[in-house]
Amino acid sequence: MTDMAPRRRGRPARKDMDSGPSAQQKILESARAEFAERGYDKTSIRGIAKAAGVDPALVHHYFGTKDEVFAAAIEVSFEPALMLPALLADGMDGIGERLARYFIGIWENPVTRAPLLAIMRSALTHDAAAKVLRTFVLRRLLERIAEELDVPDPTFRAELAASHMIGIAFLRYVIKADPLASADSEQIVRMVAPTLQRYLTES
Amino acid sequence: MTDMAPRRRGRPARKDMDSGPSAQQKILESARAEFAERGYDKTSIRGIAKAAGVDPALVHHYFGTKDEVFAAAIEVSFEPALMLPALLADGMDGIGERLARYFIGIWENPVTRAPLLAIMRSALTHDAAAKVLRTFVLRRLLERIAEELDVPDPTFRAELAASHMIGIAFLRYVIKADPLASADSEQIVRMVAPTLQRYLTES
Repeated sequence: MTDMAPRRRGRPARKDMDSGPSAQQKILESARAEFAERGYDKTSIRGIAKAAGVDPALVHHYFGTKDEVFAAAIEVSFEPALMLPALLADGMDGIGERLARYFIGIWENPVTRAPLLAIMRSALTHDAAAKVLRTFVLRRLLERIAEELDVPDPTFRAELAASHMIGIAFLRYVIKADPLASADSEQIVRMVAPTLQRYLTES
Repeated sequence: MTDMAPRRRGRPARKDMDSGPSAQQKILESARAEFAERGYDKTSIRGIAKAAGVDPALVHHYFGTKDEVFAAAIEVSFEPALMLPALLADGMDGIGERLARYFIGIWENPVTRAPLLAIMRSALTHDAAAKVLRTFVLRRLLERIAEELDVPDPTFRAELAASHMIGIAFLRYVIKADPLASADSEQIVRMVAPTLQRYLTES
């Protein structure tokens, strides 16, 4: 896959078939920015290529269809979530509180919040985006978490916990509905922790 | 406000200033359909008027700005939620289970689900829609529920309970992510009921 064009230094000229890890990374970053800004529907392979300064064929070459580019782009945004199984492996004592605090932390930080909001927006407005999220990302993540749990229906339990945190994010950061929007994050952690603890540990 | 035009029978001709409760009702129904189908951004007073077969001035006359039409349109969709305070007034014994079952029932029914999805979609994609939802609808609803509760921070508690149900709706009906998407609704009620019960009754 490295035989498309010689690697070169500096900013690649448009229409050139720049390749190598830096072009791939640049495409991913452009894809993430385009999907976040325009939503799933209005983002095109051509637009991503233009923003990355590469030929559209190179986007196809590395990532395939628009759905596959989307999956790769949103996987980057879920990197913080990929930490979750490691958090769980530390043991189940106080796991509800640790998870609640970790999740709120991701949403409090504008850098990690923005791409997640873009994903929610795309999933709500475009079935194809919802399908990618469901198939490529969410399922794998929930199953990795479930492996660490010792309860009946562990994937169902993991998804119930996730649903609560997603709903809080929706009301606090999207709708910005008080009192949740202006509540102290530790107040939320205190209330939510026992719920997550029950879902993830009590049979 | 009834001096604009005489009431008449049958379907009003376009461009006519039909008035009275039937025109008002027709405008509301058209507004609801337009917002649900096109989303907040692409819906216009002119489009709503055209769908209702009335003059745009009549839409302004009855409902004011686009934001105010939106507020009136989504309030209809929240009619099932307006039952919640009555449900609460029946007493706190087993309220978590009754609420969970009632809420899931609203989302299981395509007729009541469709407008709620349209509202979530509009709120995620348009700040003005989020503001209307937050200001006109959600706050009033949460405060009415809070009046029935005997806990500290009752509005915060009500919103936490709401956040969980909204998150479940998002994963089950929007993303359609298994296992939550194909779970039996009673299985969800069983797991969620103790959470709602705790938020709404335990200090």
